[in-house]
Amino acid sequence: MYLHVQRLVHDIVADEPDPAAANALQEGLGGQFGEMRTMMQYLFQAMNFRGPQGKAYRDLLQGIGTEEISHVELIGTTIARLLDGSPRYQGKPADPLDTPAAGGSTPLSPALDQGNIHHYLVVAQGARPVDAAGNPWSGDYVYASGNLVLDLLYNLMLESTGRLQKCRIYEMTANKTARATIAYLIVRDQAHENAYAKALETLGVDWGATQPIPKTQAERFPEVKTLLDLGLQSKQYSFDLTSASEAGRIVQGLSPSGDGTMLDARDQAPAGVPSTIAGERFEEFSPGLDSDLLALLQATAEMEMAEVEPLYGPVPPAAGTSA
Amino acid sequence: MYLHVQRLVHDIVADEPDPAAANALQEGLGGQFGEMRTMMQYLFQAMNFRGPQGKAYRDLLQGIGTEEISHVELIGTTIARLLDGSPRYQGKPADPLDTPAAGGSTPLSPALDQGNIHHYLVVAQGARPVDAAGNPWSGDYVYASGNLVLDLLYNLMLESTGRLQKCRIYEMTANKTARATIAYLIVRDQAHENAYAKALETLGVDWGATQPIPKTQAERFPEVKTLLDLGLQSKQYSFDLTSASEAGRIVQGLSPSGDGTMLDARDQAPAGVPSTIAGERFEEFSPGLDSDLLALLQATAEMEMAEVEPLYGPVPPAAGTSA
Amino acid sequence: MYLHVQRLVHDIVADEPDPAAANALQEGLGGQFGEMRTMMQYLFQAMNFRGPQGKAYRDLLQGIGTEEISHVELIGTTIARLLDGSPRYQGKPADPLDTPAAGGSTPLSPALDQGNIHHYLVVAQGARPVDAAGNPWSGDYVYASGNLVLDLLYNLMLESTGRLQKCRIYEMTANKTARATIAYLIVRDQAHENAYAKALETLGVDWGATQPIPKTQAERFPEVKTLLDLGLQSKQYSFDLTSASEAGRIVQGLSPSGDGTMLDARDQAPAGVPSTIAGERFEEFSPGLDSDLLALLQATAEMEMAEVEPLYGPVPPAAGTSA
Amino acid sequence: MYLHVQRLVHDIVADEPDPAAANALQEGLGGQFGEMRTMMQYLFQAMNFRGPQGKAYRDLLQGIGTEEISHVELIGTTIARLLDGSPRYQGKPADPLDTPAAGGSTPLSPALDQGNIHHYLVVAQGARPVDAAGNPWSGDYVYASGNLVLDLLYNLMLESTGRLQKCRIYEMTANKTARATIAYLIVRDQAHENAYAKALETLGVDWGATQPIPKTQAERFPEVKTLLDLGLQSKQYSFDLTSASEAGRIVQGLSPSGDGTMLDARDQAPAGVPSTIAGERFEEFSPGLDSDLLALLQATAEMEMAEVEPLYGPVPPAAGTSA
Amino acid sequence: MYLHVQRLVHDIVADEPDPAAANALQEGLGGQFGEMRTMMQYLFQAMNFRGPQGKAYRDLLQGIGTEEISHVELIGTTIARLLDGSPRYQGKPADPLDTPAAGGSTPLSPALDQGNIHHYLVVAQGARPVDAAGNPWSGDYVYASGNLVLDLLYNLMLESTGRLQKCRIYEMTANKTARATIAYLIVRDQAHENAYAKALETLGVDWGATQPIPKTQAERFPEVKTLLDLGLQSKQYSFDLTSASEAGRIVQGLSPSGDGTMLDARDQAPAGVPSTIAGERFEEFSPGLDSDLLALLQATAEMEMAEVEPLYGPVPPAAGTSA
Amino acid sequence: MYLHVQRLVHDIVADEPDPAAANALQEGLGGQFGEMRTMMQYLFQAMNFRGPQGKAYRDLLQGIGTEEISHVELIGTTIARLLDGSPRYQGKPADPLDTPAAGGSTPLSPALDQGNIHHYLVVAQGARPVDAAGNPWSGDYVYASGNLVLDLLYNLMLESTGRLQKCRIYEMTANKTARATIAYLIVRDQAHENAYAKALETLGVDWGATQPIPKTQAERFPEVKTLLDLGLQSKQYSFDLTSASEAGRIVQGLSPSGDGTMLDARDQAPAGVPSTIAGERFEEFSPGLDSDLLALLQATAEMEMAEVEPLYGPVPPAAGTSA
Repeated sequence: MYLHVQRLVHDIVADEPDPAAANALQEGLGGQFGEMRTMMQYLFQAMNFRGPQGKAYRDLLQGIGTEEISHVELIGTTIARLLDGSPRYQGKPADPLDTPAAGGSTPLSPALDQGNIHHYLVVAQGARPVDAAGNPWSGDYVYASGNLVLDLLYNLMLESTGRLQKCRIYEMTANKTARATIAYLIVRDQAHENAYAKALETLGVDWGATQPIPKTQAERFPEVKTLLDLGLQSKQYSFDLTSASEAGRIVQGLSPSGDGTMLDARDQAPAGVPSTIAGERFEEFSPGLDSDLLALLQATAEMEMAEVEPLYGPVPPAAGTSA
Repeated sequence: MYLHVQRLVHDIVADEPDPAAANALQEGLGGQFGEMRTMMQYLFQAMNFRGPQGKAYRDLLQGIGTEEISHVELIGTTIARLLDGSPRYQGKPADPLDTPAAGGSTPLSPALDQGNIHHYLVVAQGARPVDAAGNPWSGDYVYASGNLVLDLLYNLMLESTGRLQKCRIYEMTANKTARATIAYLIVRDQAHENAYAKALETLGVDWGATQPIPKTQAERFPEVKTLLDLGLQSKQYSFDLTSASEAGRIVQGLSPSGDGTMLDARDQAPAGVPSTIAGERFEEFSPGLDSDLLALLQATAEMEMAEVEPLYGPVPPAAGTSA
Repeated sequence: MYLHVQRLVHDIVADEPDPAAANALQEGLGGQFGEMRTMMQYLFQAMNFRGPQGKAYRDLLQGIGTEEISHVELIGTTIARLLDGSPRYQGKPADPLDTPAAGGSTPLSPALDQGNIHHYLVVAQGARPVDAAGNPWSGDYVYASGNLVLDLLYNLMLESTGRLQKCRIYEMTANKTARATIAYLIVRDQAHENAYAKALETLGVDWGATQPIPKTQAERFPEVKTLLDLGLQSKQYSFDLTSASEAGRIVQGLSPSGDGTMLDARDQAPAGVPSTIAGERFEEFSPGLDSDLLALLQATAEMEMAEVEPLYGPVPPAAGTSA
Repeated sequence: MYLHVQRLVHDIVADEPDPAAANALQEGLGGQFGEMRTMMQYLFQAMNFRGPQGKAYRDLLQGIGTEEISHVELIGTTIARLLDGSPRYQGKPADPLDTPAAGGSTPLSPALDQGNIHHYLVVAQGARPVDAAGNPWSGDYVYASGNLVLDLLYNLMLESTGRLQKCRIYEMTANKTARATIAYLIVRDQAHENAYAKALETLGVDWGATQPIPKTQAERFPEVKTLLDLGLQSKQYSFDLTSASEAGRIVQGLSPSGDGTMLDARDQAPAGVPSTIAGERFEEFSPGLDSDLLALLQATAEMEMAEVEPLYGPVPPAAGTSA
Repeated sequence: MYLHVQRLVHDIVADEPDPAAANALQEGLGGQFGEMRTMMQYLFQAMNFRGPQGKAYRDLLQGIGTEEISHVELIGTTIARLLDGSPRYQGKPADPLDTPAAGGSTPLSPALDQGNIHHYLVVAQGARPVDAAGNPWSGDYVYASGNLVLDLLYNLMLESTGRLQKCRIYEMTANKTARATIAYLIVRDQAHENAYAKALETLGVDWGATQPIPKTQAERFPEVKTLLDLGLQSKQYSFDLTSASEAGRIVQGLSPSGDGTMLDARDQAPAGVPSTIAGERFEEFSPGLDSDLLALLQATAEMEMAEVEPLYGPVPPAAGTSA
Repeated sequence: MYLHVQRLVHDIVADEPDPAAANALQEGLGGQFGEMRTMMQYLFQAMNFRGPQGKAYRDLLQGIGTEEISHVELIGTTIARLLDGSPRYQGKPADPLDTPAAGGSTPLSPALDQGNIHHYLVVAQGARPVDAAGNPWSGDYVYASGNLVLDLLYNLMLESTGRLQKCRIYEMTANKTARATIAYLIVRDQAHENAYAKALETLGVDWGATQPIPKTQAERFPEVKTLLDLGLQSKQYSFDLTSASEAGRIVQGLSPSGDGTMLDARDQAPAGVPSTIAGERFEEFSPGLDSDLLALLQATAEMEMAEVEPLYGPVPPAAGTSA
């Protein structure tokens, strides 16, 4: 069973809209080595897991799989932010937005020559489950062989490739919104790569100096350096609400990446940051609720929210909400 | 951000293995109107949501989307159980399993003429992200138009179609494992259909006697009847850990299904049941961990799990774990 | 612009339901060489046609393309008839049908081991735009190169392959419903093959004895023989309402198939037979309209149909309607 | 059975070629919510229809489905016109065209950075069965559940989404060729939306003020305004040659769109405009027929067209032909 | 550049036709981990290789990639043999074959309920580029990251998974034709796995006891045991005509599989066995050449084959030909 | 069985990098009418061939299929060369390459607005198995009907369409690297078209003046003219190592293209040119081998290559190697 918290695992930095960068990030969301794939692959491996003695490994798959759902949320929201308004009409809000096409204007013309036209045509400047070349995500991507060692080996390769591609995306754009999210995901991919490499070490592989694969020296990217200095590449979160995960039996000791840090699986989850809701886009015919509707909803406001009796205890105030 | 609990939202009833039923259930998992699709559709609609005044609607999408992840977990695990051993060797465990192919035996021959051969060939008798005709799940399925009313209308149709298909699956098989899970999902589909129908009512639609669509009279299915008597079709869970969801402002009052019940959005989540890990399948070369490996892992057992400091509070003891 | 007549181009012969035969016929509907493909290919070639001097060739493509829409209608309806009820409950109408699954019955169990499960699960025992292996029809199939000679050569090969596949389908089943429709389409494929071969003759090719390709000697199939004796393989219909088609300038003279007949392009369209509407299927939750609804509709029956003023004159009474 | 008239349902306005606009229009032709999909969806729903009492509903589906074939013809031809010549060599006809690549020229270089390269590479500047992101049309798009109410609800949502996307395309380009066709299709989508909303009203739904969904206020687009003033959004054509359609029993009375007009199903079809054939494109190796070939065809001109005896009566002279 | 020899790399053992086994083998040909994929993946990695100092690694990829083309040839031909005639008419050659469908016979009825219907409908009982669930092979499968270590790691996992799946296929059928080819490919997959594992050892990985992954103990399959005793799992062929391959610098020394053998890269290629041409299938309308045509071809037999001057020297007589 | 020679069938001419041209060439590699398709189609037709009397035809298919593997190698390598460095950083090698992203640089920014972003993101500026619109190659493309005449007719059309598309690509770009390879493939497509047209002549078709189809007059392209003057369009190579091919019995006599040349099937293969290995790309994290690794490999250099005993004799010194 899964529960949600109205917080993002990492902050989204503000910058100008950038449809071309948004399109590049789609590879990290809906691409063959993106977050939708890692999420689904680990959840299927956890569902199909065989052998109760291997619970620690199952829990590792389940924990990383759960984190990936939050990564889907983070990169999807980042893409939506990058698309929110186009370079040409940003900063000139009122007129083009509330009178779309009046006088023959073409507020959506950027769709024709930047990024993926579906971002404007199919969704209202939001994320889509496709890759950077526009191919829809496919269930074919999911690998779950039923053999634990093979699955771990594939997962290691999957995280490594995801990290490699994100390093390349970083080099495609200087947009700060794009780079901040990409940098965070590069470091977390490294963390997962470390976890799978360590799991293979517990099964007998000695990686020597080969890890990490590839050696992108991503510390040369300033945003990545900051997160590495915080040790985020060596942290394994359980994302397990009742602390039943035994993944910590595997993810401990010296990092197989050779960076000299110790792996640390003690934390349940990062604190995260409050999530927000994007503004309306009239030119996309995404008006949100109008004033009549708001009044109607207000009338029901006296409903007793207080009597809601959650089964699972509330989080500490520090975690905050977006309410 | 998402967290996981090692519990299933509903119990999986025991019965004989049934590869053909397992294949039919794949439509409910990876089909165009299955749980992977509802999950992804609502999560994308929530990420791309526009208009902060509509938070109650966003929270509704987020809440149902989160529940659907648990439905993916439930139906995926059910499929794995249905595949676990074949009719021909069930109950004769030891020999065929630990000496695969010895003497020219063909323990996997059921794969050739029942259900989906990939269940045996690609995974070790586990679930796959495909539909009942073997087509992989596609990102093309996800609908998120950026227009709230259209999205709600589509979601209503999506839940109704999912329920229709599940009623048909129910009529294809008498296997109790399959029927119990299908019955639960029929009732929850009805609950979501009610929620979306109600949301459209708050926006001005009067459904009259048309709801529910279709009128399958699923109460004639005994397993469904039991759950309807518990009122499960009128419950909306928030699946929101910090009770920040405002979906209850929408999902309240008389059910649009015309069954005379009141909608109830007070609960955070169902109690669920402990999840378990399936046994090994030697003939699939899915051996789990052998004794050497177990010893190696035991040696690390003294690791301090106690010092794990969860960010979010532990659940009450009643919720249990699978440990 | 297109208009419709409520008649089928050819009669559908009655026989027992046969889901496996229905599935085989799907290749002729939604397969790579099926009717949806020929239809779309010729309509796209006609839309994209270049060179007003070549109008006779454009009209040939347009005319055959229009006929193919009627073939889609014919084979789709045939598939629906073949699926209408299953071998196991055919002839025992009342009980299983109006109380689906009551007492744990499984009226749809044939779906698990015959033909395509989607015929029962996705549609209510109707046709689908897929091939006999379940692959959805794809726009990739359509060939339109912009070079007239190449297009004609491809079309010849397309019709020949469609005919070859239908001869193989004929040999897979003895079901009369399936065979009657397949036989008609074999003969019309031959007619179109003749038309394209003749068009290539007008451009300089001498086929010698190679036509038809392949030499299936389909006259050994009795249903085919009957239609050949009527000369249906040498008729080219214009399906052009205003007789503006110039295709007859091409399709005339000795048939390139070497059967000694003269090609004949004088007829606008075959007379056809009235189409009917299938019965309800309660176990598929396809109830049609109930009595309340009928009353409601009756109340509007006094509406003046008489004042309907068709732009294009009505057909002679002989053509009939399904009313 | 279907017949064709050599007329387009609406005029195509002349303007400069515009490959990027042509690519955007592909969504309206081969996209998930484009005309190929509406056409196929309604034709399959009509073929698979169950329940003779519901003939009026079947006829509605058949009528709109038939109109959509003409829409495929209209938007496909519009795309071909938009591609006919590129911005760079338009108006400089002779030299680059009849001596392609002579002296190393690159007449097709616009293909590399505008719209869809396949428009130049695969077809000779013509339409393709793909969407604006290049994905081929898929049979997966077609929805036909076998449940009438669900199908109508889906169709309503389908038309609404098609209209929403076309309003967005309108805002992407100021090209008059593109806008005129898009405006016509917006208004006809509205008409179909009205028809489906009305059909659901006859089954008990009261839409209140929610219709139309979405509220794009497309009357702000001048080309749309002109057509709305003609009442085209409230007209339902039968496209039924023998006036056997009973759809008028449903589509009558006040429009559910709340625009105060009465729905009107009396007309068989619009008058349309003559269709024409595009010119040759030598640089695409689409030469049409050369002079030798023309002579050969002329020789057969004495063939008696007069003896063609159409089964169905000719249209009034006013309708014209492209001959 | 590639050259062909009219020999198969391994013998195809005779047994009864078996369409279901033929279908299972399709996974090994056109599946995600089949021979078409390994072939294409290694050829693309070789084409895109970067860094002249790494020539030994490039040559290893090129050599295995070239061997995989021969594996495509072997398994494709095996599938065709397994389909050649059906269990029902095998041994009764004359009548049903040369008069297809005469008297209403249905020689192709096995197509309806065994294996893949396309084997009979689309090809004349031959192999297809699809997997065992009927999905066409996709370019999406090919992995080539541009990072050598990642590519090697992926290739190791690819061979391991291919071997795992083939061990499962072995357990599905007792057909000797199927098992003989599967056994050969299991052993060669092991050889390639050893080669990639060794290549990773040269880059610093110590596999310890983990290799091979998975531990299927395939020596329990008698056909596999025979080949292992010949040491075929430790042989690396260059398939390089001019002995320019440097792959032997990598593939040498103790096998990483822990079986105690030494890797041996000295041979260019196996001797192979003559390939033959299958018989005609009249019921599939695959008649081969008739007597008229043969006479025509004979007339040209005096053509001088002797003057053919091969660029590359002929093979030693021992290799034989199928002439 | 296949063997490889480390030579390319044709030289790759040097010019500036050109990602847009590289993308256009992808159609010739992974498109529906590209080299991967011709290769696979002919290899499958050869594997599935029926009728030993038709060996000459089988050998023709096998020979052209083998040549196509070399064409895949040639065009794939050409694409990699066209992508090797981008226009913006070409000629400024050192700094941007060995310190990727240092100081916030974006060496991969050309990926965002030229050609296919996957060329930079997925591979390290190398070729991919996709077409020019980014669609992955599909097994669906392969046509093998089991009827010889149909297969030959399709193959003729396939080669003609491939040649037509390559003539269009030629007109899209003036890049010399792209044009040289395209010109070679145009001429070889013509040669294969001639071979298939001739094969159909032996079966009775008289093409008259229609061949070649289409008449692109490609001799106006200077690079094509040079190769035509060498007669390359009339040469049929066997690519058969042991001269067992009987294709020369078919491919002889006057060319059906009407160019007055005699077809010539005497040569085994062209001489080709040595292939080389591309340089490293640090900004793609494709570093090749570093100095440590080189030392390690050197240590094994004393391995005896001399004892390698090739089964098939070495080529004459003239053919050369890339060593």
